[in-house]
Amino acid sequence: MALAQLVYPGAVHTRLHHSLGAYHLMCNAVNELRYKNVDISPEEETAVKAAILLHDIGHGPFSHALEHTLVSGVHHEELSLMIMHEMNDQMDGRLQLALDIFNGNYAKPFLYQLISGQLDVDRMDYLTRDSFFTGVNEGVIGYDRILKMFTVHNDQLMIEEKGIYSVEKFLIARRQMYWQVYLHKAVLAAEKMLVKIVERVKAIYSDDDIRLCTNSPLDYFLGSFNGNMDKESLELFCNMDDDDMMFAIKRWSNHPDIVLSTLCKGILNRRLLKCHLHDNPVNEEALERLKEKVAIQLGISVEEASFLVFSGEAVNTIYTSDDEQILVHFKDGTVKNISQVYNPLIHQTISTPVKKFYICELK
Amino acid sequence: MALAQLVYPGAVHTRLHHSLGAYHLMCNAVNELRYKNVDISPEEETAVKAAILLHDIGHGPFSHALEHTLVSGVHHEELSLMIMHEMNDQMDGRLQLALDIFNGNYAKPFLYQLISGQLDVDRMDYLTRDSFFTGVNEGVIGYDRILKMFTVHNDQLMIEEKGIYSVEKFLIARRQMYWQVYLHKAVLAAEKMLVKIVERVKAIYSDDDIRLCTNSPLDYFLGSFNGNMDKESLELFCNMDDDDMMFAIKRWSNHPDIVLSTLCKGILNRRLLKCHLHDNPVNEEALERLKEKVAIQLGISVEEASFLVFSGEAVNTIYTSDDEQILVHFKDGTVKNISQVYNPLIHQTISTPVKKFYICELK
Amino acid sequence: MALAQLVYPGAVHTRLHHSLGAYHLMCNAVNELRYKNVDISPEEETAVKAAILLHDIGHGPFSHALEHTLVSGVHHEELSLMIMHEMNDQMDGRLQLALDIFNGNYAKPFLYQLISGQLDVDRMDYLTRDSFFTGVNEGVIGYDRILKMFTVHNDQLMIEEKGIYSVEKFLIARRQMYWQVYLHKAVLAAEKMLVKIVERVKAIYSDDDIRLCTNSPLDYFLGSFNGNMDKESLELFCNMDDDDMMFAIKRWSNHPDIVLSTLCKGILNRRLLKCHLHDNPVNEEALERLKEKVAIQLGISVEEASFLVFSGEAVNTIYTSDDEQILVHFKDGTVKNISQVYNPLIHQTISTPVKKFYICELK
Amino acid sequence: MALAQLVYPGAVHTRLHHSLGAYHLMCNAVNELRYKNVDISPEEETAVKAAILLHDIGHGPFSHALEHTLVSGVHHEELSLMIMHEMNDQMDGRLQLALDIFNGNYAKPFLYQLISGQLDVDRMDYLTRDSFFTGVNEGVIGYDRILKMFTVHNDQLMIEEKGIYSVEKFLIARRQMYWQVYLHKAVLAAEKMLVKIVERVKAIYSDDDIRLCTNSPLDYFLGSFNGNMDKESLELFCNMDDDDMMFAIKRWSNHPDIVLSTLCKGILNRRLLKCHLHDNPVNEEALERLKEKVAIQLGISVEEASFLVFSGEAVNTIYTSDDEQILVHFKDGTVKNISQVYNPLIHQTISTPVKKFYICELK
Repeated sequence: MALAQLVYPGAVHTRLHHSLGAYHLMCNAVNELRYKNVDISPEEETAVKAAILLHDIGHGPFSHALEHTLVSGVHHEELSLMIMHEMNDQMDGRLQLALDIFNGNYAKPFLYQLISGQLDVDRMDYLTRDSFFTGVNEGVIGYDRILKMFTVHNDQLMIEEKGIYSVEKFLIARRQMYWQVYLHKAVLAAEKMLVKIVERVKAIYSDDDIRLCTNSPLDYFLGSFNGNMDKESLELFCNMDDDDMMFAIKRWSNHPDIVLSTLCKGILNRRLLKCHLHDNPVNEEALERLKEKVAIQLGISVEEASFLVFSGEAVNTIYTSDDEQILVHFKDGTVKNISQVYNPLIHQTISTPVKKFYICELK
Repeated sequence: MALAQLVYPGAVHTRLHHSLGAYHLMCNAVNELRYKNVDISPEEETAVKAAILLHDIGHGPFSHALEHTLVSGVHHEELSLMIMHEMNDQMDGRLQLALDIFNGNYAKPFLYQLISGQLDVDRMDYLTRDSFFTGVNEGVIGYDRILKMFTVHNDQLMIEEKGIYSVEKFLIARRQMYWQVYLHKAVLAAEKMLVKIVERVKAIYSDDDIRLCTNSPLDYFLGSFNGNMDKESLELFCNMDDDDMMFAIKRWSNHPDIVLSTLCKGILNRRLLKCHLHDNPVNEEALERLKEKVAIQLGISVEEASFLVFSGEAVNTIYTSDDEQILVHFKDGTVKNISQVYNPLIHQTISTPVKKFYICELK
Repeated sequence: MALAQLVYPGAVHTRLHHSLGAYHLMCNAVNELRYKNVDISPEEETAVKAAILLHDIGHGPFSHALEHTLVSGVHHEELSLMIMHEMNDQMDGRLQLALDIFNGNYAKPFLYQLISGQLDVDRMDYLTRDSFFTGVNEGVIGYDRILKMFTVHNDQLMIEEKGIYSVEKFLIARRQMYWQVYLHKAVLAAEKMLVKIVERVKAIYSDDDIRLCTNSPLDYFLGSFNGNMDKESLELFCNMDDDDMMFAIKRWSNHPDIVLSTLCKGILNRRLLKCHLHDNPVNEEALERLKEKVAIQLGISVEEASFLVFSGEAVNTIYTSDDEQILVHFKDGTVKNISQVYNPLIHQTISTPVKKFYICELK
Repeated sequence: MALAQLVYPGAVHTRLHHSLGAYHLMCNAVNELRYKNVDISPEEETAVKAAILLHDIGHGPFSHALEHTLVSGVHHEELSLMIMHEMNDQMDGRLQLALDIFNGNYAKPFLYQLISGQLDVDRMDYLTRDSFFTGVNEGVIGYDRILKMFTVHNDQLMIEEKGIYSVEKFLIARRQMYWQVYLHKAVLAAEKMLVKIVERVKAIYSDDDIRLCTNSPLDYFLGSFNGNMDKESLELFCNMDDDDMMFAIKRWSNHPDIVLSTLCKGILNRRLLKCHLHDNPVNEEALERLKEKVAIQLGISVEEASFLVFSGEAVNTIYTSDDEQILVHFKDGTVKNISQVYNPLIHQTISTPVKKFYICELK
């Protein structure tokens, strides 16, 4: 959860925990579906379990927070795929089926949907885990109940009719976790500070500046990396973790660049930028004035101040009915997308405005 | 929870547990409010704690399920009041302040609202407790968070602005518990069977029928009780509990009246009436035909069959904005009723249709 | 847990819960053993699960507390067997294998040992459950860990060497639950009062005394039952439950026999006899003087007073190395009884004096 | 818990969690004691809470594991004291009372005993927390019960007589956590590898070797630190954390020194030394032969091999009756040290041999 622990101190759980948890739920899901006479071969079972264990392996330091900043232009799922391909080569093709399922190129779509869909075991694990470790019990969901409501028709993963209330709860819990945790304004501020740190280092990077250099793979991605993720780059990427980043932040907190040191000290001493959330876009003029104020205050340029005063959009992508669906299988045999089911709360949750506008500024 | 354990076997918790739990939450609520400089004297503290301990003392056997059937025309809160008055007499008036608060006749309305309001400790305890013991974790609420969001202005209990998401969760959890637990169709069937048992015994009661007599205070309320709850009646009422009722049901399961024995055996052997829930009122003609079928099947009159085939309304009284309110205290000092706050899920939850129509029939 | 709820109000869990819990552990145990290549056929699996579901079915009202009093001379395991035989007849012999296992007459002793042995799933469930519902967390054991340490050699259930600490914990937890819960002096007093109530009713029973009669199967076992548990008696026995007993106690609390009414009112109003536990046998003379005092106080005979003042032994049967054993399977292939394993705490726990002497008296 | 997460993946909880937890228990302890009329002034309350919050502040990277290696000759409690003195200066003496209590120089010894004694809130928190996060529920203790059994006589912290079983449980739980977690052989191996890494770096340290240098305060303590913890050293010490150490291990895993890189890669890739625990001291000759074998295998000297093959003692310091005591206050007013109380399990636990001998070797 990147820096959520600055707000929710209990949130120190790791990606390893999440992967094991999602794997555990996948084991249960496979058992449930087999119990309902869904045909899953031993090879498919192994493959879908391998795929869920590896689904997040492409995450770098501080995962989502730095996803498009540290290695720009490469989505973590692409990285997961590259790493799985590499592993597949080393394992003489024994990961091929897992890869096919993970890519969505397998004849039984429900296996893919268990890994990555509106009701996948990934989401079920992280909602449960994050709400447990933050103590925000608005995020508690009935994952065991949802698993028991799973069914497969025409090779599509569906939910039985009597599971609608559990899905309702799931969608609402996700929405609540977004606003209370993932997009909590102090969490948002801390994670945007991380982004700005990386952006600032990239902006002032020079091989001659020994004080920016950390002697870790970070140096490569901040400096000479040209956007082409070849095999050597991938290996360096795999060797980076949160420790490198925290080490770097400690080191940079003494750098003479005032923008960089201010951001790094802010993270280390938990002096976060002040963050406001609004329903409407930020007034650009007001933002400009804030930047000017900070520029004068710190004796830096307005452009430099824009690392300490900035705005953006926080999007709560709960459910996009276009591409992904939750299908409901009714007792009478019919199948409907959940957006067609008459349930006011689900409708409302699905159609609720999902975008807020934030502004962060130096206190 | 009356007979919910026939569906959720874990739901064996008792009214004592609930009273102690609500008392515990009240202790926390008093501490929180004092911490925010709300003035609560030691006498008021004792009184409000006594009141919450006693708030449900007027419940008879199987509480809500038999509330208006066993002792018709007397609401359980009236009975609680009668018992508290009686106790107050025995305690030389030391319960007077608790009684004033419980009656809503005290100068600090927030003390009453802690006991009986939209966000009282009673509801917070039973939602938490019932969801724990049924395992329906859709009902989990953040009671500790809500307590921390309590505030008092103009002697009214309010919730701080940043507690809105917790209230949203609370309202939705209540709604989910109604449809998944309190109004679950098998729970509903079992509880209506209890009602029909009592109604049938009253209909055929005769002092001469030794097989109806149980040698417990039940006999009085089924037979000669005239609706006037005097001191003697109250004492008999206090001596009745679930054990008497279950004992009676076992006894009546061998009674020659086929309606009565069918209902009693149904409860004992968990052969419940079949229950259907509909959004629209039941078709009276269809109902009549069902009754006729059962009458022929069991060799009884249609009137008798109406104890085994019947319809009614299940009402989910989540929030009635008219009489009770959840007030929100905003940072800028303004106060709004929660129905005025812009939050689509709360709006939806509050305005969701709350009534369903059920039909129960002999399988 | 009979009347333990008078001391631990949370302890309202039922025999149904325990049976389902033990069944659940049995399912896990079968899975674990199969995973270790222990041969268990589908028929054996079904039988051992049926046997654990039914293992306690012979318990009457208030189970252990009234076991040898209400139906004297018949152990609850005999009654379970009788009922299972009856069910087997009705089920055309489909319970035969379950019966063979339950009787210890089956070629694979480990199946029996899972149901009834020093480390069976019965004990594992009740320790876990009782410590959860009482809140006495000294009784928490690592049941899932113990299950994972199960192994089978020469058809005997054993524990792997590295499970020794978990067994140590299990034995100590049992010991702690005995002294803190099962033999807690107020629990002991309440349960002995139940025994004395039944003994007193039997002593003064007369068909003419309508005030003793409850119109339930209790009447038969308190009166004309001659010790021969034939088929009719067994059916009556099966129709008795805690409700009948509590109903009877409420009825008898108004009986003119002062001994009986005193005991019954004591249970109902939680005015328990005072109980003392001693390491040495009770001084008989002192006991006699206490009886005389109570006899004078209540105007009853000394013999009658002996229902209100009495002594006895409380035995904590943790581990008797003679008949039952915990076998440990060492990595080097050797097998030892746990009493031969060098572990000071296990030795001490096994050899600790297990008997205390109690005296109960009217306060 | 240093590197216990290599064995128990859940054990990622931090010192911050522990400090907040111990603080929470201290709040409860103060409330309980006041409820029993123990005089604790508001100033004392603040001081004892400050002291428990700060009691572990002197821990460096990987706490106990590197305590006497990284900064040799300085105990973490001395460091805590130094830091508290420094803070006290900055706070104009407002920590003085906390310091006096923490030093054991205050007129009410029980306040010190709550922080550091046989039954202090420190131990109660870490046993509870560690058993929760490892899942080793043998370590579960009844901390809330123990707190309720606290009493103070003659200004000494004592336990009430009826709390003896809870103390028994506490002592046994500690013992079990030592052997199952803290001294688990793989945990031991990992933590000793950490020690050997630091020792190896110190042995080969040279300012000229840029590949050993990490650009963090570690460099100072591995190199020029002379054992004198002055103000500047203390500040550097405070700036070191686990991240620095993990960063260094990653860096050193590529160092040409084969001993160092072997140990570092071992930690990073979880290829731990093989560890054996024995009741008797290790045979020195056998150990020497193991070293020679590894020396030949890796082409290093026997002296160098002794970083990869070594022996030592693992001590489980449960209870030393000499210096610290658990005092029991009996109902009759007498006070006894718990070692004088007749309880076989406590006696056995206290007198159980507490030392094992380990040998670690390269696999």
